[in-house]
Amino acid sequence: MSSLLEQLIESLRVLPGVGQKTAQRMAYHLLEREREGGKHLAGVLAEALDRIGHCRQCRDFTEGELCAVCASASRDRQQLCVVESPADRLAIEQATGYRGVYFVLQGRLSPLDGIGPRELGLDQLSARLGEGEITEMIIATNPTVEGEATAHYLAQLARQRGVKPSRLAHGVPLGGELEYVDRGTLSHAFGSRSEMAE
Amino acid sequence: MSSLLEQLIESLRVLPGVGQKTAQRMAYHLLEREREGGKHLAGVLAEALDRIGHCRQCRDFTEGELCAVCASASRDRQQLCVVESPADRLAIEQATGYRGVYFVLQGRLSPLDGIGPRELGLDQLSARLGEGEITEMIIATNPTVEGEATAHYLAQLARQRGVKPSRLAHGVPLGGELEYVDRGTLSHAFGSRSEMAE
Repeated sequence: MSSLLEQLIESLRVLPGVGQKTAQRMAYHLLEREREGGKHLAGVLAEALDRIGHCRQCRDFTEGELCAVCASASRDRQQLCVVESPADRLAIEQATGYRGVYFVLQGRLSPLDGIGPRELGLDQLSARLGEGEITEMIIATNPTVEGEATAHYLAQLARQRGVKPSRLAHGVPLGGELEYVDRGTLSHAFGSRSEMAE
Repeated sequence: MSSLLEQLIESLRVLPGVGQKTAQRMAYHLLEREREGGKHLAGVLAEALDRIGHCRQCRDFTEGELCAVCASASRDRQQLCVVESPADRLAIEQATGYRGVYFVLQGRLSPLDGIGPRELGLDQLSARLGEGEITEMIIATNPTVEGEATAHYLAQLARQRGVKPSRLAHGVPLGGELEYVDRGTLSHAFGSRSEMAE
């Protein structure tokens, strides 16, 4: 095997979920059938990693000063949705009709890993809440231990600034079967039951 | 979402088995945690696609005139193993102690797709068999309909040139259970049973 091919296979393993076998398959696929697409990928990848930084306002990824959402004139600036990652923001954007703006933590509070309020840009968030435009902060961190801790911290921050904190509903997923829902979720859903409207 | 990020996600879909969701995850992973590795990948990918061509002798991928196997002085030039793809060659190289040389068809006979002897470099193979150095041609095309047809064609070619053609053994895989082996394989294995030595 040529050493450049070995290097290519090794480099492809930087992709998430790609091991030796998959990297081999990808390298051969690109060499055999997708030379043009592969060259295009190499160019876009280099440019993207070079030019994509963080939005000055919401910390999401963007190639400019502001991301498309923050720069848009048609978004509601009274609602701010806080998410852990750009992928979470994208999921909310694709699934819901939310028209407010976002704040991307790029992580969650995790003191053991050295991730505190500073690393998540919470001073920036706090200053923004203090500006008085935002009335509701929708906290959409993940329902994990660390995500919940982050949510409580954020809620406190919001109340201090006179902003109403809210949290995504937790419970049984739509289309799920009770039998297969984990105990914690079921227990929470049971405790948080709501009266049915007539 | 920034348009450069969209372009990156779109470009990643050129990789085999990578759809929209996986491409998103890869793009975010590279931007969040693997900027250096990603830049390295972009560079190696561009260089590999630019410089990797085919070995003059065996048609395998290589960045030089000859691949490492063809250039090696320690390989046995009396045995020639014919495979469909570079990945097949690599699999044989990794699994067996084979010390001969290879010929990579880069495909299989498939008249309906316009792939005939010329596209597989069979004139080149034929000339090489005619040189008289090779005594055995091990045909390792896949046990598919097209692979078998190719194998028969190759065997004929070898016989015409006075070279002994051989074929990889087919049968029940080691560690497999008869119950789960497909009918065709089982029938073949039954018919090709061999006497056990004492």
